[in-house]
Amino acid sequence: MELNGVTIENEYAEAFPNWACRVIITAINEKWAFQAATEATGFATSAIGCPCEAGIEMFLSAEETPDGRPGVAVLFFAGGKKKLKEQVVERLAECVLTQPTTAVFDGMPDAEERIDVKLHFFGDGYEYQKEVGGRKCWAIPIMNGEYIGEESFGIVKGVAGGNFFIMGENQPAALMAADAAVDAISGVPGCMCSFPVVASGSKVGSNKYKFMVATTNEKYCPTIRDKVADTKVPEGVKAVYEIVIDGVDEESISEATRAGIMAASMIPGIKLISAGNFGGNLGPFKFHLHEILQ
Amino acid sequence: MELNGVTIENEYAEAFPNWACRVIITAINEKWAFQAATEATGFATSAIGCPCEAGIEMFLSAEETPDGRPGVAVLFFAGGKKKLKEQVVERLAECVLTQPTTAVFDGMPDAEERIDVKLHFFGDGYEYQKEVGGRKCWAIPIMNGEYIGEESFGIVKGVAGGNFFIMGENQPAALMAADAAVDAISGVPGCMCSFPVVASGSKVGSNKYKFMVATTNEKYCPTIRDKVADTKVPEGVKAVYEIVIDGVDEESISEATRAGIMAASMIPGIKLISAGNFGGNLGPFKFHLHEILQ
Amino acid sequence: MELNGVTIENEYAEAFPNWACRVIITAINEKWAFQAATEATGFATSAIGCPCEAGIEMFLSAEETPDGRPGVAVLFFAGGKKKLKEQVVERLAECVLTQPTTAVFDGMPDAEERIDVKLHFFGDGYEYQKEVGGRKCWAIPIMNGEYIGEESFGIVKGVAGGNFFIMGENQPAALMAADAAVDAISGVPGCMCSFPVVASGSKVGSNKYKFMVATTNEKYCPTIRDKVADTKVPEGVKAVYEIVIDGVDEESISEATRAGIMAASMIPGIKLISAGNFGGNLGPFKFHLHEILQ
Amino acid sequence: MELNGVTIENEYAEAFPNWACRVIITAINEKWAFQAATEATGFATSAIGCPCEAGIEMFLSAEETPDGRPGVAVLFFAGGKKKLKEQVVERLAECVLTQPTTAVFDGMPDAEERIDVKLHFFGDGYEYQKEVGGRKCWAIPIMNGEYIGEESFGIVKGVAGGNFFIMGENQPAALMAADAAVDAISGVPGCMCSFPVVASGSKVGSNKYKFMVATTNEKYCPTIRDKVADTKVPEGVKAVYEIVIDGVDEESISEATRAGIMAASMIPGIKLISAGNFGGNLGPFKFHLHEILQ
Repeated sequence: MELNGVTIENEYAEAFPNWACRVIITAINEKWAFQAATEATGFATSAIGCPCEAGIEMFLSAEETPDGRPGVAVLFFAGGKKKLKEQVVERLAECVLTQPTTAVFDGMPDAEERIDVKLHFFGDGYEYQKEVGGRKCWAIPIMNGEYIGEESFGIVKGVAGGNFFIMGENQPAALMAADAAVDAISGVPGCMCSFPVVASGSKVGSNKYKFMVATTNEKYCPTIRDKVADTKVPEGVKAVYEIVIDGVDEESISEATRAGIMAASMIPGIKLISAGNFGGNLGPFKFHLHEILQ
Repeated sequence: MELNGVTIENEYAEAFPNWACRVIITAINEKWAFQAATEATGFATSAIGCPCEAGIEMFLSAEETPDGRPGVAVLFFAGGKKKLKEQVVERLAECVLTQPTTAVFDGMPDAEERIDVKLHFFGDGYEYQKEVGGRKCWAIPIMNGEYIGEESFGIVKGVAGGNFFIMGENQPAALMAADAAVDAISGVPGCMCSFPVVASGSKVGSNKYKFMVATTNEKYCPTIRDKVADTKVPEGVKAVYEIVIDGVDEESISEATRAGIMAASMIPGIKLISAGNFGGNLGPFKFHLHEILQ
Repeated sequence: MELNGVTIENEYAEAFPNWACRVIITAINEKWAFQAATEATGFATSAIGCPCEAGIEMFLSAEETPDGRPGVAVLFFAGGKKKLKEQVVERLAECVLTQPTTAVFDGMPDAEERIDVKLHFFGDGYEYQKEVGGRKCWAIPIMNGEYIGEESFGIVKGVAGGNFFIMGENQPAALMAADAAVDAISGVPGCMCSFPVVASGSKVGSNKYKFMVATTNEKYCPTIRDKVADTKVPEGVKAVYEIVIDGVDEESISEATRAGIMAASMIPGIKLISAGNFGGNLGPFKFHLHEILQ
Repeated sequence: MELNGVTIENEYAEAFPNWACRVIITAINEKWAFQAATEATGFATSAIGCPCEAGIEMFLSAEETPDGRPGVAVLFFAGGKKKLKEQVVERLAECVLTQPTTAVFDGMPDAEERIDVKLHFFGDGYEYQKEVGGRKCWAIPIMNGEYIGEESFGIVKGVAGGNFFIMGENQPAALMAADAAVDAISGVPGCMCSFPVVASGSKVGSNKYKFMVATTNEKYCPTIRDKVADTKVPEGVKAVYEIVIDGVDEESISEATRAGIMAASMIPGIKLISAGNFGGNLGPFKFHLHEILQ
């Protein structure tokens, strides 16, 4: 299959279940909502070495938030509910409550499963309950005024590990395509790219160092293409990037995959787009590129 | 003392020792060096609830980096050497090695104390040693080409908790002044503001909730000024921000305090600038505002 | 009338007819579309001293543009059709065609009145006609590939001079409110703020210097409030900003006024919001604040 | 000659004299200084169709400006002194005085030749003289407080038309290299790139359309490489960008050329870097690439 002159391999991405929480952060303007969201979702690229996976889902206009201020929706993902709650609590407490002019609201009010994020004890008795935009919140006196926050957040069983590979004839082309993909995905509700662009893919374990849990996936490394018998790097490809997508459901990842590949395929210098799987051993979700792009 | 019409209280900031590590991250351009640095220094506002404290020290031009590419210098701080090493390893492995086109270099080559950050095993045998800009590095084949990294980083006993308070007649004035202070401090070598602007100060423990380790510092909360007998909020002040500074030495924090207060004092609507201490019980370093601003 | 605690004066903005042209600029990514749009709409704050008035209307996703790339819609306004055509031709030729990876498309394909923007002669015979996204374009060979452009652009009789004033207790509050207003207006289709924030209002002519066409509107100047008998600056106001809006029709200006005032009123430290008129002598369009905000 | 694996042609750029004026714009923070500078230097890519050439020279820290606030230095260029004065007056009056919190200062106080920029009549008698940072300024009451401005600006006979070409194996590589060059040049004092990246080079006149003053320079157009006998596009090159540099003297252009080519040569996918001249018929200044890069 070809898209804008780029070969799309007949491959599928394999993904697995993961718990997801969506938080709406608002502030006096977009700059400060973004600042809090960035701090709260940092050190969260991959659950392999980070405490969770997190990223910005989308920007929200003042008319789309409970308190009528500009906002940012962020998504947190973790394998277990307990770990997810622990991370949401810590990150809201340390990286949102502490940031200028912020408020937080539940991003999935209709979800049945819920976690408590009880920050109001921080108020040491000066806190009080307050309704904001129809939401039951706590108002906590802090230095810059009052922090407003909901304390019950919906969670859902989402999907982690959606992915596709972008292969280019040089690094700038592949990178500009990966960036275009991420920009396109930022417009798709319900998902985010935690890295957002992955420059180093890994395989489980190691051939040489037995103490390593994960090492470079040599099949996708262009500089050692000649040394790897079963390389997946086509001739003429000098750089490969992977886009990894976590979503609240399968639909969001399908749509993100479609939008991201469309955008990447329009950048000159892209040779091939593919996807990664483990032959069905990793997880129950399969995203076939050719089906998605039909 | 008055500065640009703003009262500067005769107070001092009290700070304590902390181990510091400086890492230079370079990339194909400033955008991607900044992206890696931001991810690597996220979820790192305060050691109370985050695994470490971290932030961007400064941007580096191509002529200031070992490999002649644009870069960002970041600083990591932790109470213990072991914790610091663990965090630098995890954050470089997960948030820099994985990011497009990055390389990392030791930011304190003259420091005697050092930590090892051995990422080259990730290469699974395909890695090799390579000299870049006079530095002994490892080149690790990854998807977007080769990751280049030094693996020994200098650390020094630095200072954490430098601080000052900005009090304004409304939130926008105080926030714009805090932002101006952070911008000015970004030009001072050897330090960074991990938050960077603190909207919620805390005290140790709680008066009401015995299970809380830290709660709101009610003396600095404008909305409950009338309820707190020993409030430190002057009449007419509606918002307070704190700037917290970690530095590699006392000099950098002194200079940052000076530059930050100078900048903040120029913003219309600022009433008072002060500093926070615990009467000398917290740490051995004292930063007297009046001395610094002389 | 009060809105979020801010007094809204019972005033109206007075505006006048102006010809408007809408151009869609696309590029390889948003950064470069924005760069071209910014250059093309610079030196265009006010028709008093600039060749035209121009600004960015909105960002467009790849799915909203004829060629499936990210884009920016810009609006140009001038009193006469001839002047408008001259400016659109010059600005597209010098500031868009010359910019990396750009294409331009008619932003008002349904408009009956049209202007020709014949840039294809620049191709010196190497140009050719090409259909892109259902639009009849010219492809002109240039250094970075091919420039794609439509050459017929719809124009409509729009409205210039919509406005409102934001008065704050200090400069940071008023400025943050003005900025919030402009952000909110950027989400309203069909209009733009050419300045975008006006710091210096003017009156026609001068009381002292007969050779001056326009001079400061002393009634709105806080620093000389005590010297101006008929000052419009309330006590306690230290800074005033004006938001001036040009739109393709009355509806867009009404909606922009509403959204802008809503956003500005939410910023702490704002005292009063009003609007400017010349008693009905300037133009046929009146935008009554109280009606718009009902 | 080769630089980082890129062929540097043994060519020279040819440039010509032009009058230059340097203006320092300060504001409450960098954002608003940049906003004013961007508006004031828009619609100013090329003197062929724009009223002048203009661009941002550099950002200035608070310690580098007369009033101790963050600033931006901008450069204006025109063929004649009268045209230069007219443009500086109009652009400061319409695009700086009108912008929030701005002040302007002479950027070349030691220059002997000077132009007057008398904006103080705008004050209609309320203006007054005021010394700021050792500079004789006028303070003009406006809506957001007082506009502060010097009114005598140094001008010098500078150089326009410094240039080099970047040729890449695809558009993303060439564009990323051009952008890297512009970033590097932004650190060189005394010069600016008005476009800043040129995607469409032109030749004087036309072979086919006698009424055209300038048309595409077909020798540098990759898509018609096969149709142009004396093409300068090497095989395998798909995109060419030109960096055009105006400077206050020859040294600044030499240094900008060196820094820009160094940066561009480090981007993967670049094949050739050259320069443009008219055989010595255009101007007295020659910038030989091989000499500059020695």
